[in-house]
Amino acid sequence: MTDFALHPRLGADTTFVADWPLSRVLLLNDARYRWLVLVPRRADATELYDLGDIDRAALMDEIARASRILKGLAGAAKINVGALGNLVPQLHIHVVARSPGDPAWPGPVWGHSAALAYAAPVRNAFVAEFLKAH
Amino acid sequence: MTDFALHPRLGADTTFVADWPLSRVLLLNDARYRWLVLVPRRADATELYDLGDIDRAALMDEIARASRILKGLAGAAKINVGALGNLVPQLHIHVVARSPGDPAWPGPVWGHSAALAYAAPVRNAFVAEFLKAH
Repeated sequence: MTDFALHPRLGADTTFVADWPLSRVLLLNDARYRWLVLVPRRADATELYDLGDIDRAALMDEIARASRILKGLAGAAKINVGALGNLVPQLHIHVVARSPGDPAWPGPVWGHSAALAYAAPVRNAFVAEFLKAH
Repeated sequence: MTDFALHPRLGADTTFVADWPLSRVLLLNDARYRWLVLVPRRADATELYDLGDIDRAALMDEIARASRILKGLAGAAKINVGALGNLVPQLHIHVVARSPGDPAWPGPVWGHSAALAYAAPVRNAFVAEFLKAH
């Protein structure tokens, strides 16, 4: 755990939201979605099975918690959860609020189109709302 | 649990592999990938947080188990895990072996292109191999 360092690509594309017991919670800088990225603070984890049993259970709880908050805040029709990592090997889990009418609906958000950066006040308001709800 | 019935769309696109303690394990009928679908046998589950704590932990273990086996059998570079459900509401988790050179690499497999059906002997051989490994 002492060796954990966020992958620079994840750092560049996101805003810090919170450190939960296992995961760093980040907001992806794409104003078209409410899109969180959870990064377990464990060095060298790439696949889910690289985590021990306790960490895996904690991660599932944090994914569920993030999903539930997003569903409430974003009024989403569906939460999409994905662990891909084909480009950024550090284990990270996307938790994305989806609804009919969003740019990629009903397809996946990953690889769909270029992100549209948040205006800082909108981003900050969402982070504040999320932190109040969690 | 008594009320669980596999969504017809999931049944149509897959082959039964096994019933694990929580999930029905299915093989997606796309010969271009080694692609499993895990369906928790719980009626009316749509989001991960619809499962109770024990089921959630069990699901994470089964995802990890499926990932590890696929990684070994398919010689994959990366396992992709996704719970989308924008089209099929029944909670189901994709676990897909990915490698450079596969049709969708490094993008997501979901929504990429039409499936290429297995020849039955190839499919059956993979299912047998999977069952031996698990």
